[in-house]
Amino acid sequence: MVQPLEITIERSVNKKEKPPEDQLGFGTYFTDHMFIMDYAIEKGWHQPRIVPYQPILLDPAAKVFHYGQTIFEGLKAYLTDDGRTLLFRPQKNLQRLNRSNERLSIPEIDEALVLDALKQLIAVDQDWIPTEAGTSLYIRPFVFATQPALGVSPSTHYQFMIIMSPVGAYYPEGVNPVKIFVESEYVRTVIGGVGEAKTAGNYAAGLKAQEIAKEQGYSQVLWLDGIHRKYIEEVGSMNVFFKIKGTVYTPSLNGSILDGITRNSIIHLLKHWNIPVVEQILSIEELYEAGKAGFLEEAFGTGTAAVISPIGELSWCDEKLVINQGQTGDLSQRLYDTLSGIQRGTISDPFDWMLEVEGSAPVAVSSKNSNL
Amino acid sequence: MVQPLEITIERSVNKKEKPPEDQLGFGTYFTDHMFIMDYAIEKGWHQPRIVPYQPILLDPAAKVFHYGQTIFEGLKAYLTDDGRTLLFRPQKNLQRLNRSNERLSIPEIDEALVLDALKQLIAVDQDWIPTEAGTSLYIRPFVFATQPALGVSPSTHYQFMIIMSPVGAYYPEGVNPVKIFVESEYVRTVIGGVGEAKTAGNYAAGLKAQEIAKEQGYSQVLWLDGIHRKYIEEVGSMNVFFKIKGTVYTPSLNGSILDGITRNSIIHLLKHWNIPVVEQILSIEELYEAGKAGFLEEAFGTGTAAVISPIGELSWCDEKLVINQGQTGDLSQRLYDTLSGIQRGTISDPFDWMLEVEGSAPVAVSSKNSNL
Repeated sequence: MVQPLEITIERSVNKKEKPPEDQLGFGTYFTDHMFIMDYAIEKGWHQPRIVPYQPILLDPAAKVFHYGQTIFEGLKAYLTDDGRTLLFRPQKNLQRLNRSNERLSIPEIDEALVLDALKQLIAVDQDWIPTEAGTSLYIRPFVFATQPALGVSPSTHYQFMIIMSPVGAYYPEGVNPVKIFVESEYVRTVIGGVGEAKTAGNYAAGLKAQEIAKEQGYSQVLWLDGIHRKYIEEVGSMNVFFKIKGTVYTPSLNGSILDGITRNSIIHLLKHWNIPVVEQILSIEELYEAGKAGFLEEAFGTGTAAVISPIGELSWCDEKLVINQGQTGDLSQRLYDTLSGIQRGTISDPFDWMLEVEGSAPVAVSSKNSNL
Repeated sequence: MVQPLEITIERSVNKKEKPPEDQLGFGTYFTDHMFIMDYAIEKGWHQPRIVPYQPILLDPAAKVFHYGQTIFEGLKAYLTDDGRTLLFRPQKNLQRLNRSNERLSIPEIDEALVLDALKQLIAVDQDWIPTEAGTSLYIRPFVFATQPALGVSPSTHYQFMIIMSPVGAYYPEGVNPVKIFVESEYVRTVIGGVGEAKTAGNYAAGLKAQEIAKEQGYSQVLWLDGIHRKYIEEVGSMNVFFKIKGTVYTPSLNGSILDGITRNSIIHLLKHWNIPVVEQILSIEELYEAGKAGFLEEAFGTGTAAVISPIGELSWCDEKLVINQGQTGDLSQRLYDTLSGIQRGTISDPFDWMLEVEGSAPVAVSSKNSNL
């Protein structure tokens, strides 16, 4: 792209009322604006624009409804105590966005343009970033196929959008371990499939197992590999880590596991602390043996929503394994505190992970003024 | 449902111009009307209605865009020489629709209501059924999640729709064999996944491999199983059959293969003709061995779009296998002629497969009159 595209801004005239910060939940309220950009095969990506949050108008034959050609990303913006707005490693999300695009035969998107759009969108909706402890602004970039045609082939037209949602504290009463069901019947994906892409179908494939696990009192499922049904892959929509005899293990990226940005950051932190961390293939049998021998010290999921989600109990083929007496382990807590602290600007950022949204404060002020 | 829901009809005032029947293609033109029905967790399925074909208005957070909770069906209506409208085994599609719903955690739909809706919709758009040889009206029922919320869980709201598209002859110049690439890197799905459901993600997962195969001059890929990468599953979005030494083989329904209605009908026809037909696990090695020994007499895909798609050549790990000198085999041709004949009402229907859309002719006349 020789000439960078100019992002236009159409401001909302009727601002929505903001929800109480103690009732935000996750992903149910949305800000006043959104970003859109269109793709047509003959024009490429074009017309990047910030517009009031509004419904999408789509032909019922749009390919996204029929053939699922869509990908997404998820990241958060945090407001620091001194009023700065920070993004956590957004470049990693945009790189993964394009890796997902490539896997799903969706045309590549200019990462610099999207980062610029994201910053501008946050600046416009600056007053939507919640301020209470633990809250944040969840950001959802996504792409979907819009060509109205029923043949199974990559679409000629797409839309890229960014929507944003103020979200509540994941742990309003402190980090809380969960019970996890080890799934033996259903699988999420398999090597050679789209497991490492952040695409809708991977999540659809997991709904049934999740529903059954919930009925039985479990928060999430732990997915085993689709080939042998023995190697650990992910937990719910998070990556997963196990501390065994002082060493932290996480399944290696084999093509069917999502390359999580929180996962990557946890590995960095552990190495920084000189705590042994190993990415390797890991079977559920080995894990249970370690647990029964008393060597499994901690287990936790990692992801953007929770940062760290300690696992207090596993259930595999009717055999329960309680981990660390069902309590949050010291390392889990330390990782949570550190990563959350870096993200919220209360702890120094040794890895240069946080990106400040420049000029957001002044824009926020003018935006707030225009609200009065 | 004790009290059947009443389907309302709002007729289009501005009818579209109909495309020339020799330029229909597949799935690019749509009729004047569509059917919609809504689901809300507190109301169930409600407000079934036929309305003018129009865009869908969806919140950008609607779950279909993010988590792919959507399923579809595909079937055809045919106009006979004596002016009757026939549907091919629609009850099978509606049964499969609900099996797909169940797998994707989507609430069950009243099959009798949908069949009634389908008949009424066809009657309203009767004048859209093309009349040229080989043409038909393709019907696409589909369901998608509409709840505007970013949590990964089954939606509380859905829409069910039926859209219809007049489609051209698949073989305007006679049945034509295709070249197929045997896919060794990518997989479509795996046992324990959603392979037997007709859901968008299965098609998204296949786009990349299909694109690469097309670049190399192949029409479609032949999918191998995701576990051993050796057992034959499907070809493109069709089921697949092989005639070896007089016996016809097709992969058995193992949970990762779509239970095709054309597949089922072909098996019925073969049994009716006393031609040995076997559903079993079938490896690509065995197939190549049979081919090289001269025992592989015919190969063909089966599906709603093509009915029968003969395979003239396979390419697996750079080894080509030409089948029946690249020509359409006698059995493939006979199956195509018979099944197409039954569908179009030119051959008697020994299995009672065809469902006539009652009252369609009179409605069509009044509909056509109202057009003038």
